[in-house]
Amino acid sequence: MSAAAGTPPARRDLRAVALGGGHGLYNTLTALRYLTADVTAVVTVADDGGSSGRLRHELGRIPPGDLRMALAALLSAPAALEDCRASDPAAAERHARWARILQHRLGGSGALAGHPVGNLLLSGVDEYCGDLVSALDELVDLFGIDGRVLPMSTEPLVIEADVTGLEEDPRMSRVIRGQVAVATTPGVVRRVRLTPEAPAACPAALAAIAAADVVTLGPGSWFSSVIPHVLVPEQLEALRTTAARKVLFVNLVAEPGETTGFSLERHLHVLNAHSGSLPIDDIVVDAASVPAGREREHLERAAQLFGAQLRSVDLVHPDRPDVHDPVKSAIALDGFLGAGTRN
Amino acid sequence: MSAAAGTPPARRDLRAVALGGGHGLYNTLTALRYLTADVTAVVTVADDGGSSGRLRHELGRIPPGDLRMALAALLSAPAALEDCRASDPAAAERHARWARILQHRLGGSGALAGHPVGNLLLSGVDEYCGDLVSALDELVDLFGIDGRVLPMSTEPLVIEADVTGLEEDPRMSRVIRGQVAVATTPGVVRRVRLTPEAPAACPAALAAIAAADVVTLGPGSWFSSVIPHVLVPEQLEALRTTAARKVLFVNLVAEPGETTGFSLERHLHVLNAHSGSLPIDDIVVDAASVPAGREREHLERAAQLFGAQLRSVDLVHPDRPDVHDPVKSAIALDGFLGAGTRN
Repeated sequence: MSAAAGTPPARRDLRAVALGGGHGLYNTLTALRYLTADVTAVVTVADDGGSSGRLRHELGRIPPGDLRMALAALLSAPAALEDCRASDPAAAERHARWARILQHRLGGSGALAGHPVGNLLLSGVDEYCGDLVSALDELVDLFGIDGRVLPMSTEPLVIEADVTGLEEDPRMSRVIRGQVAVATTPGVVRRVRLTPEAPAACPAALAAIAAADVVTLGPGSWFSSVIPHVLVPEQLEALRTTAARKVLFVNLVAEPGETTGFSLERHLHVLNAHSGSLPIDDIVVDAASVPAGREREHLERAAQLFGAQLRSVDLVHPDRPDVHDPVKSAIALDGFLGAGTRN
Repeated sequence: MSAAAGTPPARRDLRAVALGGGHGLYNTLTALRYLTADVTAVVTVADDGGSSGRLRHELGRIPPGDLRMALAALLSAPAALEDCRASDPAAAERHARWARILQHRLGGSGALAGHPVGNLLLSGVDEYCGDLVSALDELVDLFGIDGRVLPMSTEPLVIEADVTGLEEDPRMSRVIRGQVAVATTPGVVRRVRLTPEAPAACPAALAAIAAADVVTLGPGSWFSSVIPHVLVPEQLEALRTTAARKVLFVNLVAEPGETTGFSLERHLHVLNAHSGSLPIDDIVVDAASVPAGREREHLERAAQLFGAQLRSVDLVHPDRPDVHDPVKSAIALDGFLGAGTRN
């Protein structure tokens, strides 16, 4: 059993950037929001499943789902609602309600069934603006969100993986295309690539990384939400050169599908294989899943590939053992940042 | 050629309600907004065509199109933007932009093609709230709209018409069902009904009519946007009993389809045939389309069916001869209201 979370840390004067996608990013944004109102989400744009996949293929624009979740996270993070409530209780109610509306999936059995309202809205505004960053800024402005949501790349991306274990011969590798296919393959993902291979980064995301005091990566679907961030060359370069403290959150549990059976150490090895020499300050793993003895040494050696300190912390949500508790993540981050920030 | 509009009238301390649907209501709302910021739109909910028809049938909820147009009208009426600009120029820009976004129709060739963004948004919020009036209030609140948009009835309605001229025998009447079918019939519409026959009114709309200083009806598709308002029994009763000044705007031109070849006089006779003894104060017709001699006498006699004064005014938009100019309509209304209001 995991301990209760405790008291969230006090606010800091901090510029934070969170890289990721999906539920993992949602959690990290919620955590960072405890530390500061200046949070920028940088979001993967390679989804091809569900509502996002349908909208992407129908409208020929970036899949909206991960971006919508990041907007909802910043809109309704407990710390954001608390800030809002202090000056305008009705606005806090409205923010919480709109986060739920953006996430609400349409019912029925027709063409719209399953589309979250926020996906339809973001797709519509994106098509109207003709520019995704303007569309996201328009929604941030409309809803009165602190912070910003940006795409990892200004073009929709396709994830492609080399996967073994799908043939009789276990050494034989097949190419699997698309986020859903990669995330659910019964084989073993060896390597992922993006198509286009060296996609254009989002200039605003590069600027946010350069100006940040702290940048987080993960947790999240390792091959389809986390590793893609180091496959955008300009973004990888921005991560290498920023003076921000860089913190990697490793998943609490291996995900069925793309990381079935992966140890913590293997998570680090595959990231390193894709990122090359990316300096990271802190690699955060859940205390309960850190192995003992020789295996722990291997894990520490894997962390050293990034020049990182291995941080073993209780991160587990008291009610949901597969999910990071944002308050615990915030307390951990606060501890790493110590008395000051690097900038 | 029609004269330029002139200067909009000064603001009054006035509660205004506009009944109608579609482009006609859009124009009346724009006109009323010059006189006051306290404008309530009461909107027909019988559309079954285009995006609204698709959403209505798919989600089993009220067709959003006319409601969306009313929201866009109040959001971007020149007088509303002017009010906004005085205190917050950026907000005025945002209001104008969002009105365009709500009206923007999605492209592509898929399931979403042709849906205005505002229809998808309103349908989504309506489904989330489970109550259309709450959904409309939520959007009014989000966009910072002055005024309110309400449905004529809380249930989706079907229009049904008795139409002659579709058979060999010109006296033979057929029943035509659905707004699109009624609006485009090549026959002659004799009478329209709603299904359900005596639909529930929207309580908030009844309250707005009761409290109003001025209530307008029309212009608009006569059988499918204007007459339906007198077919909701409680709403007709509210119109009979309110102390508000009641102003009927008659269409500038007969519409191809449902009112092909209709004279001004005939517009009044068919409304009277549906409303019974509805007292109206002013019936506003375009000066250029008022006939001379005997026909003018007939028109005045038709106006007397409502106890109304016939107001012959230049109303035509200088650039579009089929459309009311909102500034001219506002100036006319201002004139009828005289020095004070009835309340």
